[in-house]
Amino acid sequence: MKNLKRNLTMLTDFYELTMTNGYFLSGMKDKIVYFDVFFRSNPDHGGFAIAAGLEQIVEYINDLCFDDDDIAYLRTKGCFSEEFLDYLRAFRFTGDVWAIPEGTVVFPGEPLMTVRAPVMEAQFIETYVLMMINHQCLIATKAARIVRAAKGRTVSEFGSRRAQGADAAILGARAAYIGGCHSTACAIADEVYGVPAGGTMAHAWVQMFDTEYEAFRTYCEIYPENATLLIDTYNVMESGLPNAIRAFKEVLLPKGITKCAVRLDSGDVTYLTKKIRKKLDEEGLTDCKIVVSNSLDEYIIRELIRQGAEVDGFGVGERLITAKSDPVFGGVYKLCAMEREDGTVQPKIKISENVGKITTPHFKKIYRLRGRDTGKAEADLICVYDETVDDTRPIELFDPEHTWKRKILENFTATELQVQVFKNGKQVYALPTLEEIRRHCAEEIEGMWEEVRRFTNPHNYYVDLSEKLWQIKHDMIAEHRKIK
Amino acid sequence: MKNLKRNLTMLTDFYELTMTNGYFLSGMKDKIVYFDVFFRSNPDHGGFAIAAGLEQIVEYINDLCFDDDDIAYLRTKGCFSEEFLDYLRAFRFTGDVWAIPEGTVVFPGEPLMTVRAPVMEAQFIETYVLMMINHQCLIATKAARIVRAAKGRTVSEFGSRRAQGADAAILGARAAYIGGCHSTACAIADEVYGVPAGGTMAHAWVQMFDTEYEAFRTYCEIYPENATLLIDTYNVMESGLPNAIRAFKEVLLPKGITKCAVRLDSGDVTYLTKKIRKKLDEEGLTDCKIVVSNSLDEYIIRELIRQGAEVDGFGVGERLITAKSDPVFGGVYKLCAMEREDGTVQPKIKISENVGKITTPHFKKIYRLRGRDTGKAEADLICVYDETVDDTRPIELFDPEHTWKRKILENFTATELQVQVFKNGKQVYALPTLEEIRRHCAEEIEGMWEEVRRFTNPHNYYVDLSEKLWQIKHDMIAEHRKIK
Repeated sequence: MKNLKRNLTMLTDFYELTMTNGYFLSGMKDKIVYFDVFFRSNPDHGGFAIAAGLEQIVEYINDLCFDDDDIAYLRTKGCFSEEFLDYLRAFRFTGDVWAIPEGTVVFPGEPLMTVRAPVMEAQFIETYVLMMINHQCLIATKAARIVRAAKGRTVSEFGSRRAQGADAAILGARAAYIGGCHSTACAIADEVYGVPAGGTMAHAWVQMFDTEYEAFRTYCEIYPENATLLIDTYNVMESGLPNAIRAFKEVLLPKGITKCAVRLDSGDVTYLTKKIRKKLDEEGLTDCKIVVSNSLDEYIIRELIRQGAEVDGFGVGERLITAKSDPVFGGVYKLCAMEREDGTVQPKIKISENVGKITTPHFKKIYRLRGRDTGKAEADLICVYDETVDDTRPIELFDPEHTWKRKILENFTATELQVQVFKNGKQVYALPTLEEIRRHCAEEIEGMWEEVRRFTNPHNYYVDLSEKLWQIKHDMIAEHRKIK
Repeated sequence: MKNLKRNLTMLTDFYELTMTNGYFLSGMKDKIVYFDVFFRSNPDHGGFAIAAGLEQIVEYINDLCFDDDDIAYLRTKGCFSEEFLDYLRAFRFTGDVWAIPEGTVVFPGEPLMTVRAPVMEAQFIETYVLMMINHQCLIATKAARIVRAAKGRTVSEFGSRRAQGADAAILGARAAYIGGCHSTACAIADEVYGVPAGGTMAHAWVQMFDTEYEAFRTYCEIYPENATLLIDTYNVMESGLPNAIRAFKEVLLPKGITKCAVRLDSGDVTYLTKKIRKKLDEEGLTDCKIVVSNSLDEYIIRELIRQGAEVDGFGVGERLITAKSDPVFGGVYKLCAMEREDGTVQPKIKISENVGKITTPHFKKIYRLRGRDTGKAEADLICVYDETVDDTRPIELFDPEHTWKRKILENFTATELQVQVFKNGKQVYALPTLEEIRRHCAEEIEGMWEEVRRFTNPHNYYVDLSEKLWQIKHDMIAEHRKIK
């Protein structure tokens, strides 16, 4: 299997290095700290996001290593001591990582990942970890929206040419597949990650022949089992469609092949696909599918379906691969605790004038509470690491901001969301296959109430804090306000 | 120097492979064709874009090569003949490429790159070429806008953690530097491409110490020459600023160092920076700079400056590295000509119901016409490849859509925009250094009239066709309309 690995240890914000060197020089290098990765709001004002990117983070952590080029480069910067550079030569990750598996539905404020490690290591990995989570969560979440909008029609990811660089294309195709896309146009994403790739022809194919009919006929002869003809190079109804029908009838039908497709990449999709469907059916080509592309996203797809467009499959390019309508997944990496000399955990908080930027302190864990009868997720509960939720008894939940909003939940199951991925620097989590992740994602979305899944004004899913955690946070804010 | 190369030959849309195989099987493989790369509109409704990404395309073309893994993968797809797979083993690029150098100001409709090659080769490279141009033009253009908004203040690219994958971070930093950014946070972009990287501290540094003052003092002791203190971890005016001033006075001033800075990452920037400036000046710290970050872009920066915010430098993250307000650069790759058996060039056109999607046929070249007295660019003229512009005589230009709009240009120089990059598959263009590209970009922008540079309703720069080219296009459209 092809491997695209390269040493990206140095893909880090420079301040991770200045801080790491600072911890080294100020005698703090062995301090054990906890960092959380979380995000503050769902993309596109949606009701949830999809976790993705963990596999690449696991690889990154396993492969962390400064090579001679890196050390030589760092020396040229003139701000690092030789002792520190020596330390970097042997730098490996020795800590623990817990994370929510890929494909899981996640919500703002939840630790998608928690890192416990000596501060130099935990600090250093910030940039890459965030980049990977921010990118793949973004695309998986967007893909899940688009796939839901398509209501069972196939959705192919077509965006490589508009992706923001090679990894955006390749891992974007991976993330889109996790989110529910059926295939990709990106061949290397198939070769390396097993995302099924497919494709047929561009306008150039049609232009290369003296006539459109000849282009179609030749294509059908070469790929009788996979003939999707692009019918809008010159004129859809006057030329493209009649030529496609003729090629299907003359080349495919004699071979007994009725499965074929036409693709439309411009024009009024609703109007044209209705006319195309009618014509195809009149000609007896009822097995011929209609595929459309051209700047689609979940909003346009929903509208096309509402208008009765006759579409069997969507090719979605730039608006998926860049998550165009909201192209930033704002994951952050925040210090939430330190270990004291005696090994006890000391919670840490960051205060801000912007209330939304105040962090939830402490080493935590997250439970998802699902109705035993419905199987649907009712709420997530974030606790201190040493708490356990007993799902044999009713539990009282409360809104962490408006604490008078309370609710008793009965007859539920409680499942921890994070799994341990690294223990003392060793990977202890067997990575699921891409197919498993994709299936898990589909089940996760299915496990959300319709109100959480809708695009417009979704229900604000409950992510509550345990009484104990809420109290600790509250006391720490009060303490900071007092000191000033 | 560190090298991040990997074999990305297979980063291609699958349809390039099905089409290539189709050309191979239908006896067209040696047909010489011409493809143009061009875009249809400027990002963010701006007046122009910046060309970028050529260096990576040159590397890609030089390194094109299907390895054993690729061939084995393709065989599993079951739709390619062994003859074709054998052909791919020896696949190299043997054609010609012309391109507009990186850093050049470019306009919609202009061929940023023209590829002349056997159709299999010219077709195959489409996806990667577009991806690279689309990504780097997007970021370089965005960066140029942000830098112009900052009116001489420094702009640092801070976005790696929000980038859409590793290449988006690394090559995004490169493109941002071309567009005029002064530095990046991304260490590997410095190591590999020489984009100056810098950085100081995150909130975590402050949180790691028992007091904010201790965190600042320690930092100043370790990095007295580069002390930028982040002052908004707890409370800017009550705690952050006083602690920073104390650390500067106690650690830096005794060493005779007056250069230092504070950074603000939240809150009301205009209000706070005015108060911070006043306080710093009162304390005699007039050399202390104020740097701000937090979801900035050209619109916010322009507004902050208009409001009189006291800012010396901007750190710009997610909205630059993803070009958030308009994250897709819509470059396309279109067949524009073929060579006949006798070597003459036969123009090709793609018609569309959407008038904007009709292509300009033929093998072309582009001239930039600049006023001899002003040095400013007045118009670009796209000609047929065998035409020459004589800049010793007046020239009559006309709007290709509203042909009655005519203008005589006198006293101008005419410079061809494209340079030849590959000839018969060999690189014949010496790639400029990144510093040269960046300088060229600054000069190019300086060479545009203010009306073209403005953000709102910029002047629609003239990109005209020669009389000959216009006539060919016009005749071809008429011909196609007639045939139907």
